[in-house]
Amino acid sequence: MMFEKWVLTILLLQFCCVGCGFCGKVLVWPCEMSHWLNLKIILEELLQRGHEVTILTSSQTYFVDYHKPSAFNFEVISVSGNQEDAEKIINEFLHIAVNIMPTLSLWESAKLFQNYFLDLTEQFEELCRKAVYNESLIVKLRETKYDVMVIDPMVPCGELVAELLGIPFVNTIRLSMGNTMERYCGHLPVLPSYVPVSMGGLTDRMTFMERVKNMMFILFFDFVLQQYDFQFWDQFYSEALETLELVKSLGKAEIWLIRTYWDFEFPRPYLPNFVFVGGLHCKPAKPLPKEMEDFVQSSGEDGVVVFSLGSMVKNLTEEKANFIASALAQLPQKVVWRYKGKKPATLGANTRIFDWLPQNDLLGHPKTKAFVTHGGTNGIYEAVYHGIPMVGIPMFIDQPDNIAHMKAKGAAVEVNFNTMTSADLLSALRTVIYQPSYKENAMRLSRIHHDQPIKPLDRAVFWIEFVMRHKGAKHLRPASHDLTWFQYHSLDVIGFLLACVATVIFMVTKCCLFSCQKIGKTGKKKKRE
Amino acid sequence: MMFEKWVLTILLLQFCCVGCGFCGKVLVWPCEMSHWLNLKIILEELLQRGHEVTILTSSQTYFVDYHKPSAFNFEVISVSGNQEDAEKIINEFLHIAVNIMPTLSLWESAKLFQNYFLDLTEQFEELCRKAVYNESLIVKLRETKYDVMVIDPMVPCGELVAELLGIPFVNTIRLSMGNTMERYCGHLPVLPSYVPVSMGGLTDRMTFMERVKNMMFILFFDFVLQQYDFQFWDQFYSEALETLELVKSLGKAEIWLIRTYWDFEFPRPYLPNFVFVGGLHCKPAKPLPKEMEDFVQSSGEDGVVVFSLGSMVKNLTEEKANFIASALAQLPQKVVWRYKGKKPATLGANTRIFDWLPQNDLLGHPKTKAFVTHGGTNGIYEAVYHGIPMVGIPMFIDQPDNIAHMKAKGAAVEVNFNTMTSADLLSALRTVIYQPSYKENAMRLSRIHHDQPIKPLDRAVFWIEFVMRHKGAKHLRPASHDLTWFQYHSLDVIGFLLACVATVIFMVTKCCLFSCQKIGKTGKKKKRE
Repeated sequence: MMFEKWVLTILLLQFCCVGCGFCGKVLVWPCEMSHWLNLKIILEELLQRGHEVTILTSSQTYFVDYHKPSAFNFEVISVSGNQEDAEKIINEFLHIAVNIMPTLSLWESAKLFQNYFLDLTEQFEELCRKAVYNESLIVKLRETKYDVMVIDPMVPCGELVAELLGIPFVNTIRLSMGNTMERYCGHLPVLPSYVPVSMGGLTDRMTFMERVKNMMFILFFDFVLQQYDFQFWDQFYSEALETLELVKSLGKAEIWLIRTYWDFEFPRPYLPNFVFVGGLHCKPAKPLPKEMEDFVQSSGEDGVVVFSLGSMVKNLTEEKANFIASALAQLPQKVVWRYKGKKPATLGANTRIFDWLPQNDLLGHPKTKAFVTHGGTNGIYEAVYHGIPMVGIPMFIDQPDNIAHMKAKGAAVEVNFNTMTSADLLSALRTVIYQPSYKENAMRLSRIHHDQPIKPLDRAVFWIEFVMRHKGAKHLRPASHDLTWFQYHSLDVIGFLLACVATVIFMVTKCCLFSCQKIGKTGKKKKRE
Repeated sequence: MMFEKWVLTILLLQFCCVGCGFCGKVLVWPCEMSHWLNLKIILEELLQRGHEVTILTSSQTYFVDYHKPSAFNFEVISVSGNQEDAEKIINEFLHIAVNIMPTLSLWESAKLFQNYFLDLTEQFEELCRKAVYNESLIVKLRETKYDVMVIDPMVPCGELVAELLGIPFVNTIRLSMGNTMERYCGHLPVLPSYVPVSMGGLTDRMTFMERVKNMMFILFFDFVLQQYDFQFWDQFYSEALETLELVKSLGKAEIWLIRTYWDFEFPRPYLPNFVFVGGLHCKPAKPLPKEMEDFVQSSGEDGVVVFSLGSMVKNLTEEKANFIASALAQLPQKVVWRYKGKKPATLGANTRIFDWLPQNDLLGHPKTKAFVTHGGTNGIYEAVYHGIPMVGIPMFIDQPDNIAHMKAKGAAVEVNFNTMTSADLLSALRTVIYQPSYKENAMRLSRIHHDQPIKPLDRAVFWIEFVMRHKGAKHLRPASHDLTWFQYHSLDVIGFLLACVATVIFMVTKCCLFSCQKIGKTGKKKKRE
């Protein structure tokens, strides 16, 4: 029976590959954390549609579980560290970001962040070196004749591998620091007057000083990335493949899959090869486990609050955990709290702590009234999908930005993680639960999210398959990639036209002066006569 | 039986309106010629989906056949002219554009065009006045409670009616002169370095002088439209509805349906409320009439050439018709020529003249090898849909632009209508028929056209229905609409930052000079001591 099933599956796959003409081979260059959780949904869908998916992963990966049996193929790049080291690095980063940075000055924070960034670059370089200089691996990959590469550009090198294999690639990204990657590599136009650059926590409606701040952010991120990232990788890339640069190489992406949509983003100019696929991981809620369902049902009319600071933040300081618990204890709602630390002394009878939550199923439960979140994109999209208002406690990377978006759209209240008190959290929760506008706005976003011509996951898969079918998507690539920066901004044309105008003014003035002089001389002559 | 059918239809419509929650009432402000032919396809689809469609049309219309029984409702605005006058105006325009203009100097052509433009504006003004100052009409329309208006902004006033009725509207447009409307009203970003402005006949890959030309076109069209169009309508609009202006009013469009797609357009930045629906009218070919099919089949291996200068150009000068006929006579292919004039003396045995052609069915016929076209968007899209290479003989408005697009994409050869000889036409036809790259490129465009996540017609209807369901699409509207032009271009921010830099430089220089002076003085003092 089992054998027959296998034969049938193989036959179906064969038929699919022959029948549809584009079922092909996908090579993946992933990133860790929520990036991977999101990308995995696309890859599983590609598998479902009969494609072969191979993941090129570091042996040190913490998220990509290449040890377990899986429908994915894995090509593991051996680096010096192991999975435990990876976990240590992630925990160290979280400890610095959550507990250390808030106690430091801006300058000390920047210094610490720079050091972490340089450490990370060192690891990425090792990974890249072990991939591109491993001749047998490259030959094997080349011989497999992949049709497309799906790359998370947060880990550099994927695009270099694609160059070496000579295959088209698709980028998948939420955002880069200050949108530098999208701007420099993807040629996304910059309009600092109403397009807030990422990581600035600004919205599309800015005061004059906010617009100044936005412009300063752009200049700052451009400087940092040029100085610490692009320069380093340009040198590495040009060593591996003559005259190649990171910006040029990443700019060859056929499609940029952006993990947001207009329910979340502020409307802004974009390009035809930018496809917005935010919320592709969202699904209708499944029933909760019996114990959790009973607890949720016991909330009666008041309903439930779901509290999670994401899969990464496992421990809080005892003090913080205590005042969070005491705030939650004052709510008439029942609270489901994802928390792995020591049980706080102030924990109320209405609050239950869980190691792990079926977050999507809880947010889709009819009893759920509010979601307390750190502001990760995946979690926010689950709340948007189910129309749940939020209290955001953002900490780092894109989280302050994400919460700023939800605040501007009237579906969230923000609480400062470092300075918050029990009263702040309680007041924020009461606001989003009892002021109807928050629920209405969350429902409005949900309606927008659900009312798209095609589902985000289908859109993502469509464009990856399109690149496979057509060996690229060159018809969507703007010609700006062939211009220098001064040509792009028409500086040469403006200069030329200004020179023309100046010449005409000069000639006319000269002619006038000459005529005046001549008339003057003739007048004098006539007078003298 | 008939009665039962009617009852069933009414019940179905009722059910649809209640069941889907958004089947609604659509009010349409149309334009003439190919614009109407394209828009009609969308409106018929809206009817099919159970919406009620009312067309607000001038009594003078030539294309919108409100006399015949129709599934559309009509609200006819009585103006001084009748349908015969409209035909006369259209024929006059065609005669000027096709026969007179080529014989005139650029200056005389511009003058003639300006006069025609002013005449047209006068007619549009009468239509608008008769619509917005007809109180009973406005009250009737207001009471009908339309859900959305679909507007072709080439005829001004639709958006003013929408304002008066207080309903959201969707614009449908191929392009405006120099893209002024899309830029000023829709806030489509301008990048003159690689985005050729419409009516310039340029592509996305421009030489330095072409980029200068593009910039000049932008400045020229901005001046002309500001001077002759915006100013006039601003005054009219502000009289009808206080403080209203054309640009602001048109800028309130929820969605802009653009009648092209990336198979035709050069990739460029656009906004989320711009939806590209080019080729929505294209359909698979139906069988040809018996006589035509026999003629086409008689072409054997050589195949057929389809020749049409559109529904508007009926007569050519005898000389022109003769040398076209003599060029066609030299082809081994059979030729199907849409032509209403006197039979040319040089007409070959291989050429058959028809009053009207089932153009889409002919272009989709397996025997068709090439399409000779004036370059109207609808015709070009039919050729793209069926993958047929083209010979373009553009005459006016968007036609030179359309052919420039197809030329740049390698699917067409252009022949100058005014200067062409028999040999030019023959050589162009031989090129597109016998050089395989033209067929290959036409097929590539066809594949791109057919390989979209959803069909263009479905996309157009989806967004009209979206506006009905949500009473707008505000989540797609960029915040740039609330900025002044200098804020939009960040000129205030740049000025402020430059002033800051200048102040810092000034202070530092002053401090340095002061310190130097002080050191100098101390030195001299010490020396003296």
